[in-house]
Amino acid sequence: MPPLAHELASPQQLDTPDTLHTKEWLRRYQRIRQASERLCEPLCTEDYVIQSMDDVSPPKWHLAHVTWFFEAFILVPFQPRYRSLDPIYDHLFNSYYETHGVPFPRPSRGTLSRPTVAEVYRFRAHVDAAMAELLESPPPEHAEQIVRRVELGLHHEQQHQELLLMDIKHILAQNPLCPAYRDDLALPTEELPGDLAWLEHAAGIRELGHDLQTGFAYDNEGPVHRQFLEAFQLANRPVTNAEFLAFIEDGGYTRPALWLSDGWQQVGQAGWQAPLYWVKREDGWYHYTLGGLLPVDPQAPVVHVSFFEADAYARWAGARLPSEAEWEVAARDASMGGNFVESDHLQPLAAAARGSAAAQLFGDVWEWTGSAYRPYPGFRALPGTLGEYNGKFMSGQMVLRGGCCATPSDHIRPTYRNFFPPHARWAFSGFRLAREA
Amino acid sequence: MPPLAHELASPQQLDTPDTLHTKEWLRRYQRIRQASERLCEPLCTEDYVIQSMDDVSPPKWHLAHVTWFFEAFILVPFQPRYRSLDPIYDHLFNSYYETHGVPFPRPSRGTLSRPTVAEVYRFRAHVDAAMAELLESPPPEHAEQIVRRVELGLHHEQQHQELLLMDIKHILAQNPLCPAYRDDLALPTEELPGDLAWLEHAAGIRELGHDLQTGFAYDNEGPVHRQFLEAFQLANRPVTNAEFLAFIEDGGYTRPALWLSDGWQQVGQAGWQAPLYWVKREDGWYHYTLGGLLPVDPQAPVVHVSFFEADAYARWAGARLPSEAEWEVAARDASMGGNFVESDHLQPLAAAARGSAAAQLFGDVWEWTGSAYRPYPGFRALPGTLGEYNGKFMSGQMVLRGGCCATPSDHIRPTYRNFFPPHARWAFSGFRLAREA
Amino acid sequence: MPPLAHELASPQQLDTPDTLHTKEWLRRYQRIRQASERLCEPLCTEDYVIQSMDDVSPPKWHLAHVTWFFEAFILVPFQPRYRSLDPIYDHLFNSYYETHGVPFPRPSRGTLSRPTVAEVYRFRAHVDAAMAELLESPPPEHAEQIVRRVELGLHHEQQHQELLLMDIKHILAQNPLCPAYRDDLALPTEELPGDLAWLEHAAGIRELGHDLQTGFAYDNEGPVHRQFLEAFQLANRPVTNAEFLAFIEDGGYTRPALWLSDGWQQVGQAGWQAPLYWVKREDGWYHYTLGGLLPVDPQAPVVHVSFFEADAYARWAGARLPSEAEWEVAARDASMGGNFVESDHLQPLAAAARGSAAAQLFGDVWEWTGSAYRPYPGFRALPGTLGEYNGKFMSGQMVLRGGCCATPSDHIRPTYRNFFPPHARWAFSGFRLAREA
Amino acid sequence: MPPLAHELASPQQLDTPDTLHTKEWLRRYQRIRQASERLCEPLCTEDYVIQSMDDVSPPKWHLAHVTWFFEAFILVPFQPRYRSLDPIYDHLFNSYYETHGVPFPRPSRGTLSRPTVAEVYRFRAHVDAAMAELLESPPPEHAEQIVRRVELGLHHEQQHQELLLMDIKHILAQNPLCPAYRDDLALPTEELPGDLAWLEHAAGIRELGHDLQTGFAYDNEGPVHRQFLEAFQLANRPVTNAEFLAFIEDGGYTRPALWLSDGWQQVGQAGWQAPLYWVKREDGWYHYTLGGLLPVDPQAPVVHVSFFEADAYARWAGARLPSEAEWEVAARDASMGGNFVESDHLQPLAAAARGSAAAQLFGDVWEWTGSAYRPYPGFRALPGTLGEYNGKFMSGQMVLRGGCCATPSDHIRPTYRNFFPPHARWAFSGFRLAREA
Repeated sequence: MPPLAHELASPQQLDTPDTLHTKEWLRRYQRIRQASERLCEPLCTEDYVIQSMDDVSPPKWHLAHVTWFFEAFILVPFQPRYRSLDPIYDHLFNSYYETHGVPFPRPSRGTLSRPTVAEVYRFRAHVDAAMAELLESPPPEHAEQIVRRVELGLHHEQQHQELLLMDIKHILAQNPLCPAYRDDLALPTEELPGDLAWLEHAAGIRELGHDLQTGFAYDNEGPVHRQFLEAFQLANRPVTNAEFLAFIEDGGYTRPALWLSDGWQQVGQAGWQAPLYWVKREDGWYHYTLGGLLPVDPQAPVVHVSFFEADAYARWAGARLPSEAEWEVAARDASMGGNFVESDHLQPLAAAARGSAAAQLFGDVWEWTGSAYRPYPGFRALPGTLGEYNGKFMSGQMVLRGGCCATPSDHIRPTYRNFFPPHARWAFSGFRLAREA
Repeated sequence: MPPLAHELASPQQLDTPDTLHTKEWLRRYQRIRQASERLCEPLCTEDYVIQSMDDVSPPKWHLAHVTWFFEAFILVPFQPRYRSLDPIYDHLFNSYYETHGVPFPRPSRGTLSRPTVAEVYRFRAHVDAAMAELLESPPPEHAEQIVRRVELGLHHEQQHQELLLMDIKHILAQNPLCPAYRDDLALPTEELPGDLAWLEHAAGIRELGHDLQTGFAYDNEGPVHRQFLEAFQLANRPVTNAEFLAFIEDGGYTRPALWLSDGWQQVGQAGWQAPLYWVKREDGWYHYTLGGLLPVDPQAPVVHVSFFEADAYARWAGARLPSEAEWEVAARDASMGGNFVESDHLQPLAAAARGSAAAQLFGDVWEWTGSAYRPYPGFRALPGTLGEYNGKFMSGQMVLRGGCCATPSDHIRPTYRNFFPPHARWAFSGFRLAREA
Repeated sequence: MPPLAHELASPQQLDTPDTLHTKEWLRRYQRIRQASERLCEPLCTEDYVIQSMDDVSPPKWHLAHVTWFFEAFILVPFQPRYRSLDPIYDHLFNSYYETHGVPFPRPSRGTLSRPTVAEVYRFRAHVDAAMAELLESPPPEHAEQIVRRVELGLHHEQQHQELLLMDIKHILAQNPLCPAYRDDLALPTEELPGDLAWLEHAAGIRELGHDLQTGFAYDNEGPVHRQFLEAFQLANRPVTNAEFLAFIEDGGYTRPALWLSDGWQQVGQAGWQAPLYWVKREDGWYHYTLGGLLPVDPQAPVVHVSFFEADAYARWAGARLPSEAEWEVAARDASMGGNFVESDHLQPLAAAARGSAAAQLFGDVWEWTGSAYRPYPGFRALPGTLGEYNGKFMSGQMVLRGGCCATPSDHIRPTYRNFFPPHARWAFSGFRLAREA
Repeated sequence: MPPLAHELASPQQLDTPDTLHTKEWLRRYQRIRQASERLCEPLCTEDYVIQSMDDVSPPKWHLAHVTWFFEAFILVPFQPRYRSLDPIYDHLFNSYYETHGVPFPRPSRGTLSRPTVAEVYRFRAHVDAAMAELLESPPPEHAEQIVRRVELGLHHEQQHQELLLMDIKHILAQNPLCPAYRDDLALPTEELPGDLAWLEHAAGIRELGHDLQTGFAYDNEGPVHRQFLEAFQLANRPVTNAEFLAFIEDGGYTRPALWLSDGWQQVGQAGWQAPLYWVKREDGWYHYTLGGLLPVDPQAPVVHVSFFEADAYARWAGARLPSEAEWEVAARDASMGGNFVESDHLQPLAAAARGSAAAQLFGDVWEWTGSAYRPYPGFRALPGTLGEYNGKFMSGQMVLRGGCCATPSDHIRPTYRNFFPPHARWAFSGFRLAREA
């Protein structure tokens, strides 16, 4: 939970917003908006334009879409003087809000050369100037709502910062030239994580989810509710590349008995033989990273695996994936430090030995859980168009927890629910094992 | 729980199997096997051959596949004298057991004119004779295992009896001639279910699932485990056609805000405007039933809706679908009587007014729950190839509960977990609403 | 040219039709209609129902469709007393006549179990009775038009007799049981065709096409027109299996330089490695025939190859395919005897040595030409809905000439233009080489 | 026929190549290479990257591919000192030469952000420098072959100049912002073409095709051969927008009887209702042009229609398309002046009234003919990999003649055979009517 968000978003304060308050939000706004642009600095203009698969968006689209969010949900409703640069942007940069006009078809985002990258940056500057003016002197009757939406918009932008890195990686990885996104990334530390250990958790009723009255969280993280957990054991660290290689070498990708039916079909259709971005060469396995093509580090957590692969590995290992509730119980008391985007590795690192504590719950790799992404009891989506933010994706996806090496550190929470379809691999997704006590 | 199964499957008896015991099983075997053939009596030879979509199998394939199950899992391993009629049947009629050879491709089942219907019946008779011989005098050292597999094989065959009716309905419904499967079905009783009422359930820890030591259940129904349920309310009956029509007339199929994202996409791609089999005529809505094209009965439960439609309706109605745990808690103490295949309606009927009790939990329509189909804590699949029976389908599907008008009454249990992908509509699937207390 | 047709269809006679004349046509009608049913005698009911790919129609559909042709184009317009058995048949059995209502979707023909096979035969009998009545005493003012349409309808039915055999072969060939259509087919004679010889043709203007005033021909065979042909050489017989095997063994299917671009793509997508129906076993190549799975006869013409394969072979052999004009010039004076459906082999046979004459121009295998199927100069389609018979298929297809072992011998002419897309292989299609003089 | 090419390519001179000779070729090389770059000057960097459909290539890919042609077929074989900038370029920029390594998959060209536009221009400069050096002092033993390949390479580059304009138009047309490629295009002259007139051509033997010994032509234009043409009439100008609008308004796109079967299917699947790029607004039809969205000029030739649309229009008009032979006979003696890329309209213009002569045979719009693209009698492809240039596309395509407003004027010839699949519309394709005499 970012301290600023916690402090500012508490309902008491929002009841009495004032200029001081919104000015603090403006500084936060500016800091996060600049972070997005900093992530794009290493790109060539051409990199901004590519859509390498339907799920990927061109980087310039990301930059424009997050800007549109502020325009559509804050400036247009609350700033009467605001003028859009081009009314068609509202169509082009609406991602999926069906109740807000007709979104431009997602698979065609890569056919748009215009607005150019420079024009997208002008759009950002235009909206930023209007947002600064608004936050300098907000209409008092809307100040609370504006702050709530700025907060949501900034979390939204941070999500897209991670998506930017995922998508840039996917875009550059298609290219036989294997260009590095950056060649000055922070070097990995040399760690030798010890043997896998199992941490015990007793059975009992647990409180889960986020109290949406106290500090920011997405609607899908609440409300707080109770679950009964049977006793379970959780691995003290994620599965490593070395361990996953043993699965590969044991024929893991060729044995249907290890796979869910849909997963086995996917293996056959897509020809999977290793995690995404892995390439076998004569001298061993390499993988494409944002720093270029590098040898796979055996000690680092395996990454860019699908839920299907995580699930098959767990079956092979005689274990299972934790439920999201089990994960959350373990993570409640864990330190939230970790390898996030600020560490500037942009690749998961080997865990330091930690004795009995669970390592790497936060950062490094998103961890697939065994839980389908469904609403909590009592879930209420946000009202209006913003209600499309999370709730409508609650079918066909699995929950991941904990953030990764591309996540901003102040964007993650123990209750944070990320989600992807079970075949998706382009997120920085790994996994940790669990088993019955 | 069918009393016979309960009695016979108890572990004590299985520990001391004897001829008397297996002879009882033989009678049960013969009864259920004959029921499958009786269901096919109204068919023309041509009807047996059609595969109207990938999910549907030709009726003669069903008849052969359930027979193969006994051949492959009982006769071949336990009856050394058994000779197969044709070794290729083992390929043709293996549905999806990847660890048992290569199954014939599912979407091509409708390209097989041979073996003919008569040859399939000969295959059934051949296996039945061998099974009778085996059950008359089973090898004592395998008797327990044989009985266990017979029991599983009969439940498997009963599942396919329902699939037969679903598939026959789908096959005949494609035909512009709208042929009735039968014109002598039992007539519906005239009932006027009262207004929907909400039944209260308090919060608390509940035991769920089936104790696999006491009476038959599929592996996916166990083990017994605890869940904490927040307080909830459950509707006293399923949603009716009249209620669903109000949703249609209120633009339910045209308002994206009511739908899950995947559901909305499906509505657009498939052009859904009403439940499957519904046809609008000048004088109102008709639907294809196994008795031919009939006017939609406003009082009967809506059927042949997908999870997406059930979920959209619930959102429109300000409610939600129950979780499978909530459903099971409510069904634990309910009567298991209902409109099953034996009532010979083959169509859901209007509920009789019941005062405060929940009506139609069993029979009439399978009820979509809001729960994704995933393993219970501590789930163990059956060993060997039979482990592919249930566990490998635990992704991408939603749970349905309670059986329907095409289910054999002794095939259902409060813990029974049926499952289909969220877009599927050709099962007799309806739903019941729930909401927070 | 069948003598009867020639005699009857001459315009003078048609100007004065009388009962004698139409009674002769009735006998011809009955003979050809019976031939269709005789072809189906070896089928099981189940075989009649299958559609093994979009291009294939279920045999019972063929039997009904050719019957519909007489109903829709003769009985309905010219017999006021005629009553249809079921008005929906007009929808179900319209193949592609868009100007005559909406045809039932072709790829769904295999989803229709009804009308049953017995009902289809009743439909045939119903139409046959009405046709007999009409031809016994036709309305004088329509007698000429009726005779013209009967003639067309009978040629149409003969085309479908060949399609029936092609489709039955394709249907049974899908089945791992490899059932034979018949096990009493005529045995091949033992012939050793000599080495390939080249027959010379001088350059010059040639008259091509059929004079539509003198004897029956399809509209696409006319009008008579002139073409200039440069001098060319034509092979004295089709390419044999032994020759085609040499192409396979020389890597023919793996060398892109031999293939048209579309053909090479097809080879890759479909995984072609040999002609359709060929299977490699330890002891050599087999192929599925209407008599079951048999060793490939090296001396017989290769069959079930696509235009792409014929074209690639020709390039490999330093030759080319003849144009349809070249083929027609050579065939004008050739004997029209050959291995047709009446020989009851249903498989091409080795050519008898013939000295200098061209062998097998007629019968055995349809011969791919290098000519795209386009209209002749001055082409006029039939008026009205019958104009859809041929003309609308004049894009994307290549011309084949000469008939095959499944063609009725009185259905073929030197000017007859058959056509299939260049990737099609399920016709009895082979080829003959040509080259520049 | 460009005079320079004619003069230089004559075999006598090629027999005695010398430095003077190749220096002239160098000047021609530089002129044409610069023309490609000039066409791209109006583009933003982002425009260079987009692939708007599989058939379209990103402009930077075109610029690199034509450069690769000189590298792969001239520099690598004939200039031992030549060093490639990056060996992977040989993979990335090979279009379809299967006998020259594995081409990068065509539909993925739009996933390549690197090499960047600047790097592609560096690649061009690198190859241009090496070509200049080679042409300044060619190895005498290879000079003739080098000149032949330079000539082919330059014609190849000119083809891609037209493709560049076609693809740029398609790319920009996807964009709801409707950006103009240029806003300074030459203005159309105001012409009122008179009524359509028919020009008579007598029957007779005609010589067709190009003598490949006298001046440059592609291999597919030869050899010279004879054809007999029946008498025919050819329209004096292409069909105009006004005429095509009458077809639309007469229900042309809704009447199956007017269409080839494949065309009618395409109309339904693609939802065609007008030519490509046409948009109906309240005040009439507009179309996207390289100068932006403009009202359709009724007098100008219709453009961006498929063969299917041209054929349907001709049937509606009671006429037909000319064969390519008929077109060539008419064009042999016509003036080759016209609206080519040099006129800088980049859009077809209304024909000036011309009395009895045929107008616009060259330039303005490519004219669909009724001829499938197949080899002439005696056709020989170029030897080696260059043999893939034309011959392997000789299936599934129709011939177009005459060049268009985007064709370089010195790239066209009366014998020039362009070809596209019958459904293609993104070329500047129109048509002219013919009919029997």
